[in-house]
Amino acid sequence: MRIGADYYPEHWDRDRWKTDAQMMVEANIKLIRVGEFAWSLYEPEENRYDFSWMDEVLDFFHQYGIKVVLCTPSATPPKWMADKYPEIYQEDIHGNPKIFGTRKHYCFNSGLYREKTRKMVGQIASRYGNHPALEAWQADNELGWANTTRCYCIKCEEKFRIWLKNKYGSIDCLNKKYGTVFWSQIYNSFDEVIIPKAGACYDTCHDTQGQNPGLLLDYYRFSSDSVISFMDETVQAIRVYSSKPITTNMLDASINSGTGIDYYKMSEKLDFVSYDNYIEFQWGIAEAAGVSKDHTLMRSYKKQPYWVMEEQSGPCGWSKMGPTPTPGKLRLWTYQSVANGADTVVYFRWRACPFGTEENWHGILNHDGKPNRRLEEISRVGNEMERLTRIYGALQPKARVAIIKSFDCEWSHSIHRHVEGFDYDKLLNCFYKPFYEMGLAVDFVRPDEDLKDYSLVLAPALVMLNEKETENITEYVRQGGNLLITFRSGIKDSYNNMLMDTVPGSLKELTGTRVHDYDPQLQKQTRVSTVFGEGKASLWCDIITPDTAESLGIYIDDFYSGETCFTRNAFGEGKAYYLGCDLDEEGMVRLTKYLGKAAGLPVHLYAIKGIETVEVSDGKNNALFILNHNAYPVVTAVDGNYKEMFSGQRVKDTICLEPYGVVLLDRMDLGNA
Amino acid sequence: MRIGADYYPEHWDRDRWKTDAQMMVEANIKLIRVGEFAWSLYEPEENRYDFSWMDEVLDFFHQYGIKVVLCTPSATPPKWMADKYPEIYQEDIHGNPKIFGTRKHYCFNSGLYREKTRKMVGQIASRYGNHPALEAWQADNELGWANTTRCYCIKCEEKFRIWLKNKYGSIDCLNKKYGTVFWSQIYNSFDEVIIPKAGACYDTCHDTQGQNPGLLLDYYRFSSDSVISFMDETVQAIRVYSSKPITTNMLDASINSGTGIDYYKMSEKLDFVSYDNYIEFQWGIAEAAGVSKDHTLMRSYKKQPYWVMEEQSGPCGWSKMGPTPTPGKLRLWTYQSVANGADTVVYFRWRACPFGTEENWHGILNHDGKPNRRLEEISRVGNEMERLTRIYGALQPKARVAIIKSFDCEWSHSIHRHVEGFDYDKLLNCFYKPFYEMGLAVDFVRPDEDLKDYSLVLAPALVMLNEKETENITEYVRQGGNLLITFRSGIKDSYNNMLMDTVPGSLKELTGTRVHDYDPQLQKQTRVSTVFGEGKASLWCDIITPDTAESLGIYIDDFYSGETCFTRNAFGEGKAYYLGCDLDEEGMVRLTKYLGKAAGLPVHLYAIKGIETVEVSDGKNNALFILNHNAYPVVTAVDGNYKEMFSGQRVKDTICLEPYGVVLLDRMDLGNA
Amino acid sequence: MRIGADYYPEHWDRDRWKTDAQMMVEANIKLIRVGEFAWSLYEPEENRYDFSWMDEVLDFFHQYGIKVVLCTPSATPPKWMADKYPEIYQEDIHGNPKIFGTRKHYCFNSGLYREKTRKMVGQIASRYGNHPALEAWQADNELGWANTTRCYCIKCEEKFRIWLKNKYGSIDCLNKKYGTVFWSQIYNSFDEVIIPKAGACYDTCHDTQGQNPGLLLDYYRFSSDSVISFMDETVQAIRVYSSKPITTNMLDASINSGTGIDYYKMSEKLDFVSYDNYIEFQWGIAEAAGVSKDHTLMRSYKKQPYWVMEEQSGPCGWSKMGPTPTPGKLRLWTYQSVANGADTVVYFRWRACPFGTEENWHGILNHDGKPNRRLEEISRVGNEMERLTRIYGALQPKARVAIIKSFDCEWSHSIHRHVEGFDYDKLLNCFYKPFYEMGLAVDFVRPDEDLKDYSLVLAPALVMLNEKETENITEYVRQGGNLLITFRSGIKDSYNNMLMDTVPGSLKELTGTRVHDYDPQLQKQTRVSTVFGEGKASLWCDIITPDTAESLGIYIDDFYSGETCFTRNAFGEGKAYYLGCDLDEEGMVRLTKYLGKAAGLPVHLYAIKGIETVEVSDGKNNALFILNHNAYPVVTAVDGNYKEMFSGQRVKDTICLEPYGVVLLDRMDLGNA
Repeated sequence: MRIGADYYPEHWDRDRWKTDAQMMVEANIKLIRVGEFAWSLYEPEENRYDFSWMDEVLDFFHQYGIKVVLCTPSATPPKWMADKYPEIYQEDIHGNPKIFGTRKHYCFNSGLYREKTRKMVGQIASRYGNHPALEAWQADNELGWANTTRCYCIKCEEKFRIWLKNKYGSIDCLNKKYGTVFWSQIYNSFDEVIIPKAGACYDTCHDTQGQNPGLLLDYYRFSSDSVISFMDETVQAIRVYSSKPITTNMLDASINSGTGIDYYKMSEKLDFVSYDNYIEFQWGIAEAAGVSKDHTLMRSYKKQPYWVMEEQSGPCGWSKMGPTPTPGKLRLWTYQSVANGADTVVYFRWRACPFGTEENWHGILNHDGKPNRRLEEISRVGNEMERLTRIYGALQPKARVAIIKSFDCEWSHSIHRHVEGFDYDKLLNCFYKPFYEMGLAVDFVRPDEDLKDYSLVLAPALVMLNEKETENITEYVRQGGNLLITFRSGIKDSYNNMLMDTVPGSLKELTGTRVHDYDPQLQKQTRVSTVFGEGKASLWCDIITPDTAESLGIYIDDFYSGETCFTRNAFGEGKAYYLGCDLDEEGMVRLTKYLGKAAGLPVHLYAIKGIETVEVSDGKNNALFILNHNAYPVVTAVDGNYKEMFSGQRVKDTICLEPYGVVLLDRMDLGNA
Repeated sequence: MRIGADYYPEHWDRDRWKTDAQMMVEANIKLIRVGEFAWSLYEPEENRYDFSWMDEVLDFFHQYGIKVVLCTPSATPPKWMADKYPEIYQEDIHGNPKIFGTRKHYCFNSGLYREKTRKMVGQIASRYGNHPALEAWQADNELGWANTTRCYCIKCEEKFRIWLKNKYGSIDCLNKKYGTVFWSQIYNSFDEVIIPKAGACYDTCHDTQGQNPGLLLDYYRFSSDSVISFMDETVQAIRVYSSKPITTNMLDASINSGTGIDYYKMSEKLDFVSYDNYIEFQWGIAEAAGVSKDHTLMRSYKKQPYWVMEEQSGPCGWSKMGPTPTPGKLRLWTYQSVANGADTVVYFRWRACPFGTEENWHGILNHDGKPNRRLEEISRVGNEMERLTRIYGALQPKARVAIIKSFDCEWSHSIHRHVEGFDYDKLLNCFYKPFYEMGLAVDFVRPDEDLKDYSLVLAPALVMLNEKETENITEYVRQGGNLLITFRSGIKDSYNNMLMDTVPGSLKELTGTRVHDYDPQLQKQTRVSTVFGEGKASLWCDIITPDTAESLGIYIDDFYSGETCFTRNAFGEGKAYYLGCDLDEEGMVRLTKYLGKAAGLPVHLYAIKGIETVEVSDGKNNALFILNHNAYPVVTAVDGNYKEMFSGQRVKDTICLEPYGVVLLDRMDLGNA
Repeated sequence: MRIGADYYPEHWDRDRWKTDAQMMVEANIKLIRVGEFAWSLYEPEENRYDFSWMDEVLDFFHQYGIKVVLCTPSATPPKWMADKYPEIYQEDIHGNPKIFGTRKHYCFNSGLYREKTRKMVGQIASRYGNHPALEAWQADNELGWANTTRCYCIKCEEKFRIWLKNKYGSIDCLNKKYGTVFWSQIYNSFDEVIIPKAGACYDTCHDTQGQNPGLLLDYYRFSSDSVISFMDETVQAIRVYSSKPITTNMLDASINSGTGIDYYKMSEKLDFVSYDNYIEFQWGIAEAAGVSKDHTLMRSYKKQPYWVMEEQSGPCGWSKMGPTPTPGKLRLWTYQSVANGADTVVYFRWRACPFGTEENWHGILNHDGKPNRRLEEISRVGNEMERLTRIYGALQPKARVAIIKSFDCEWSHSIHRHVEGFDYDKLLNCFYKPFYEMGLAVDFVRPDEDLKDYSLVLAPALVMLNEKETENITEYVRQGGNLLITFRSGIKDSYNNMLMDTVPGSLKELTGTRVHDYDPQLQKQTRVSTVFGEGKASLWCDIITPDTAESLGIYIDDFYSGETCFTRNAFGEGKAYYLGCDLDEEGMVRLTKYLGKAAGLPVHLYAIKGIETVEVSDGKNNALFILNHNAYPVVTAVDGNYKEMFSGQRVKDTICLEPYGVVLLDRMDLGNA
């Protein structure tokens, strides 16, 4: 448990470094991240290098005991390179190059850029790989930011055709799997296959580009693979010279709505996961539940402690700013990270930069570089962590509930959204939020991940499953698990084709149901009446014939009033539930309580709005974080005797949290602390 | 009166054909439409042909007595062709090619593509032109879909210049007619004339592209001509080998808001009209009155029975879906088609395709291919028609009211909309709807069409008329007709220039009025008080000086309170009414009753919401369709004794229709049935 | 005080000229403006000229005593030129040429086009420079209209690099000033510097294009300089042959929201300012206060009488129209111009054109060319002015209040808007409007303009100031002035970088405050309580530590409740106020009264909604315009005895204005008239 700061030594006079380092030490800032946009400093002209400035940086901060996370600088190729080798430019869906002037303007499949990157990374790694100040590596920066995962250039087209050839072997196989017989799109060779650029109806048929769904999904997979393979070349180049752990900073899903990268696969290449966590800024104000979900996703990618590599520390945005963090929020957000499994939180950025696109992006310090109330608040956190670290190892929530998240499904849903308003990430959030409110930890899992330790598994809109994945979840139920499957599950093959089977297709036996009709809810809503109470669907209604399953709920509107919307099927030792419709927020809470109870989870009677409770453990010690996301104080009940670890005070029965307050409760009778 | 299904034999294993054919026979499905996207099957490589599969299709379905509508496959040129001859690509208004990946990506003016199409069509026509299963031909598919009528490529520019040379003879003449002296746009030769691509203010001056209005209108005419001439080459190529009737499937105006093709002119080349009728899907939910208006348009283009070539049969859309058709709606929609003059209704599509862009476009059957409630409903329709066909020939409504619709006017209005909110198609609908509600059939007519059989003719916003057209409507009134002319009529010449005359220009004498001022209703509304009661204008107010006309209504708001908004002019034996403003829905109903009464039409006292009544005749028999578009049952009065033809029951005074119910009443004392 | 009309002799048969001229003479129309789009008439083919038609025009109207403003025709290069020299095309931010078909499609930095323009202007000036009918010159037309100030072509890129070299000398200096170390954008030479076209995040990161803010600001300055230098070549070419005054028609800020041209700098090249004033048309309906502000801006650019070169005279728009001017409004708008300092008002246009893009743009006359109520109203104005001119010279309001408007600030704010909803022009309007309502004249001034004659100076969001400007406003206060500075002032250097100083940076000493925190108001509002009463901030809150200043107001919401929002600092002989937040409309009125009183201005107790009062003087005579912008009559109090100059009646204590009425009061006891 520690804090750091994102630092840009190249933005400040050397004189200032000393002041900054001293202030950091006082605030218990343990590390800085540096260098992610520094290519034109390292290599001002082709093959002319200058590492002296970074030598100084590392040596300087080492004197102060401040560790360094060193980034590779590939996010911003310098102008001389773009001018000499314009092939490195990424192209957008219309085929226009994303020209110089901002960042992330390179194509992941440019052989030249990959070579340049490997060479640069190799030099950095060999020079600094064993420096005593070095703590870890960050590969590139925010890979996939701002729709840059998918490039539409000729190099990508060529690589994609090779990728396809490797996957399908023969063009006949590809034609069959894609169903290119539809609309006369049969290819005679892999050289004819297109990348799905904007076509005849890109603008005119709203919210769809009309390309073949199999081709689109493969291009999304290929693009994700391309980014990961680009990153992996950096990882490999580092490993030659350095044994320090390697990460890259991912992006949240709540505001950035997905980068198009399979973060499970990406995580496999990394030693630890990290990500950037902005809560209130130019591009939106995130709900606390959504932030919690993002944290949970990050913890889930490797099922390990992770870092926040960029944590908001001031008002920020590019052309416009969001609000300033209210006093208490920086501390609250930091402990929300820790409670959900982060062990290092790095604030972006130490001090606001006076120039460049992000001159309005405030850090801990304002442009004037003077101590302020945000530094004070962060110092408090630094001091608290200093103390807590003596007691606790890496704290992690222990989840008994899992929600299946699949990137194949995410992309398939983004290609064909089924109905207006459907959004896979939002749907996952709907299933996450009631557990968050009840203080029950959740893991996100892959469809093929081992599920046996979970009491309850949810599979929202698991639109496509391969055989292994189907077997995995089936076996989970067979062995006694409790599984909820929803509408739009099991209906596609992995080529993004609809199964020629009655819905829910590959899950019919497991769920013991057949869906004999379904009604997308365009411009309407349908009420349900179920064993867990009432609810309202506004996206989708599957009209169910229970086969071996029992009906646990019915629709009470429209022509399918009285027909089944919710079922339970005894299967092996377990139970498979099928929910044919989405539910409003209150309906979701009722369903969650019902399922929780059925799965033997400790379901609370009620939740307090804005209170997030997370039970954590470092393996030896168990403790309880309670976070107040409200602007007002809250009194909440606690069961038993605790020591509050920030204040050292004893707590019994109830505790009062200040606005945006945080407490960490350790059970007295468990004997720790 | 019969039903069919759009079928894609190439999407299914041959084994399945038999099942499908048997199910079709049982449902009384009489025909299938096939082959509109099959080019790459017919000609997998340049000049290598394979017709064997279609040979099988025709022979196979012939065995079952199922007729075949065979399409020409030009809607989707294969990839090898696009790769070898990129000139075939259509270009958008910015000059970007509409690349491969969806459909309709070819330019109608590509000489190469026309040659390829003629050759392909010739081969298909010669091979199948006399096949006993062949019922009819469909040329291409949905010509003009998704803004594809107007292409902006160099080939079009060249052809356009020739078209202009033929029209204007000299460049001086063109300059004069276009008024190119405005903004220094004088051309020195036809080679200088541009096609109206996106120019300096395309994005910046909202909702207008700023090009010369005469040039724009000519380009719209040229584009329409190009599509029709492309299609006519297909028609001619078929006629060499086959005497079967030829159609193409048009698009509705309600949701697709016009294709930019003059359907009157297109219809002249066709043996019968057909169109695609989607009521509730991804792109919107159509009002029943609007659907009725579209049917009426289709019947009006040739004043003959027409087909629905694609009738919605399940939930559909591309990336998203609309609702599933409520039980009863498929039957209702089918009889709405028949009541308005369709004699064949072909459902799109037999079964949902598991792959391709339209994998979510549900047909009669779901992906699983099993019988379902939609097939059951359609079978009922099939059986009913089987019986009715023994009694009735082609049923057609007989209209005593005509609304003038002009494509020149439609395009002129789309170039200059006069005021925010003005839309020609919506305006036509405003005039159509009250007649629809009163059960009075309407025809749409060209401005130069013979009008003598109509008791009442309406000319909404007839912005431009040539001499022949002016004479036609003048003569209609002179001979005793009743004609309503509205604001924005008679103000332009056929070059899209404003007349240098007082409004309504060429119609001043006929209407006996002068408009001395007018007030576009931007951000305001103006009330009127008239002989037919009150109303409210929200688009336009002409302030009228009656000359020979009498004032029948006045404005009661704004500075023109007390001035005339509505007049009647006795002219020859007839009456010419002039309405200077638009009206709200209730005002339109009042106006319609007033005009109907004046024209001696059987005006009802009231209408029941959602009830559509259509009197039809096959020349010998007369009958009455009553359709209930409501989700609830409705009791309605009928005058006299009838036999209800679906149930065989006698009906007297009143009849009760079930939700979405349809009855067909035949008057007992007329002695038929 | 006189009126004119924009006239297009080339649009009409020569026969008509006589009718038009006679009607103009009768209406007391003193001058016409001609020729701004006539290049293809003057030079129908390259180097073949024809001036005979314009010879006729000048001679013809001279016979009638009608003066002529002659335009240079560079706004619309002819087609032959664009075809032969496509380099003249301007390019948009994506690098697409703005092709032929509308207007303003040329690049200001095309050497070829500049040469062609100089040559054409020289010929016109030499031919007509001493014609007795000639009154004045207009250079080009609506420079910068519709985003045409900033071009993104290769010629501009080359010129921009030279401009930068002249400014910065060395590339190191540019790198330092731009902070190109941010995001690895260091340039090795001026040849590498880009123009800020659409880059990697243009579409994806909403409302910002992500380019370097220093580069953007310089490109905006360069673009403004380019337009002015283009215009100045025309001005110089005219001056060789003619001594008549030269202007160009600027665009209002209210609806056109800025052209990106520094109108102060542009005005220095001109003999008088003129602009186009459209109040209610396709693109919006302007508030009377905003129109008044635009007039005031125009008067302020040279602190001289100005012209309205295009004054709305009918319903207008391109594809759509706005409402027709209600009777009385043309006269009202004309006198609003005069009251605010215009001495010539030219109506656009004499008669509606029957062809071209603007065929719906109505002038005084409709397409029919017949006398109408608009001509009648304008004739009344013409006659009134005829009389008034015998009494008054050029009437000008005398302002004791100044609002600082800086184009550098405008552009800086447009690059980085600070917070959602912030708009510099709207903010200026917020500060202007209360003075307008109280009948207190305002001048807009440059930050370096002499301020000593003003009792009160306001500096809203004066984001950047150079040393000279800082010294100018500081000296103003030191010498006894009253200055209000607001949030977002003094925080940037002139390279668009944030100062590394505590806010308000360069103004800390003058204001005697430090801003220790600030809160952009995204999705919230904060109330204040001050010496002038309550108010509400919805954009920005600076949280202030008064140093030498006194606190005059506090926030009463959020975590900074009780902290200072408004201060006053005694500095030298004067007072510097600092307002840390924006205010709602009522709060602004309260603040304005407070400041007005403090500055010794004649603050009224109340204002009547829709009444604009302007005290004017021609140096000898003083008078009072009262304008009623309401659709209803209004009684208003006047202090003392007056003669109403339109009616000649005496007025005492009160006067009643008709709807849209205007009175001009001359104080009896002052003895004039």
